[in-house]
Amino acid sequence: MPTQEQMKAVLQAYVDGFDAADPGAVSGLFADDAVIEDPVGTPPIQGRAAIDEFYVNAMAVGTKLTLDGPIRGSHGDKAAMAFTVEVPAMGMRIHAIDVMTFGEDGKVTRMEALWGPDDIEQ
Amino acid sequence: MPTQEQMKAVLQAYVDGFDAADPGAVSGLFADDAVIEDPVGTPPIQGRAAIDEFYVNAMAVGTKLTLDGPIRGSHGDKAAMAFTVEVPAMGMRIHAIDVMTFGEDGKVTRMEALWGPDDIEQ
Repeated sequence: MPTQEQMKAVLQAYVDGFDAADPGAVSGLFADDAVIEDPVGTPPIQGRAAIDEFYVNAMAVGTKLTLDGPIRGSHGDKAAMAFTVEVPAMGMRIHAIDVMTFGEDGKVTRMEALWGPDDIEQ
Repeated sequence: MPTQEQMKAVLQAYVDGFDAADPGAVSGLFADDAVIEDPVGTPPIQGRAAIDEFYVNAMAVGTKLTLDGPIRGSHGDKAAMAFTVEVPAMGMRIHAIDVMTFGEDGKVTRMEALWGPDDIEQ
C-alpha cells in the first residue's frame, strides 16, 4: 500500500496537472482500469481511453483547481481533498471533494467526486 | 432519495450536534444498522449501540468541529464535508473529510472519515 506521503503527493500532482494544463500528467496518475465517478450519481467512466479523454476535455475549457485546506489521508488506501474548480470558459465555479482509492502500485484505482447541482456558482 | 438540501442539513446537524455537546442528536442522524469507518482503514463500527457509544465518547473529550468551506452534495445519495476537529482535552487538532451515504428515509447508512496519522496536529 502506498504511504500517506505518496498518496498525498498524487492528489497534489492532480491539482498541479490542471495548473500546468497537462491532461496526460493527470490521467497518468490513474491505473489503466481505473473507475471515475465524477460526480457521484452519474455513470462512471472506466479505462485508459475514457480517462485520457475526460481530462483532455476538462482542461480544454481552462479548468483550474484551488485546494480548500490540506489534503487528507487515511489509515488505509484512500486520500481526499476539498477544492474549488474554476471553469473560466463557462464563468462557473464548483465546490467539490474528491476521494481517491489507491492500488498497491500507487496508482489511483477509483475516484469519487462529491459535488451536486447546488455546488455550482454561475 | 433525500434531496441535496436534506443531505446537507444532516451534515450541518452533525457539526451542530458536536457544538451543542449532544451525542444523541448526532447518533440519531444514522440508521440503526449504519456503518461508520472513522478513520478509513480501521475496523468499522456498526449498529445503534456502537454508534451511540462512539459519539458519547467523542464528545466526552470536548470535541468540536469547524467546517473548512461549504458542505458538498452529489448527483446521488452521498454528501461530504471537510472540517477541522478540535480535541481540547488532548491538545489535538485533526484535518478530516467525512463522506456520508444516505438511505431513502434520509438517515445516514454509511460514513467514511478520511484522516490519517499525518493529519493530526499536536
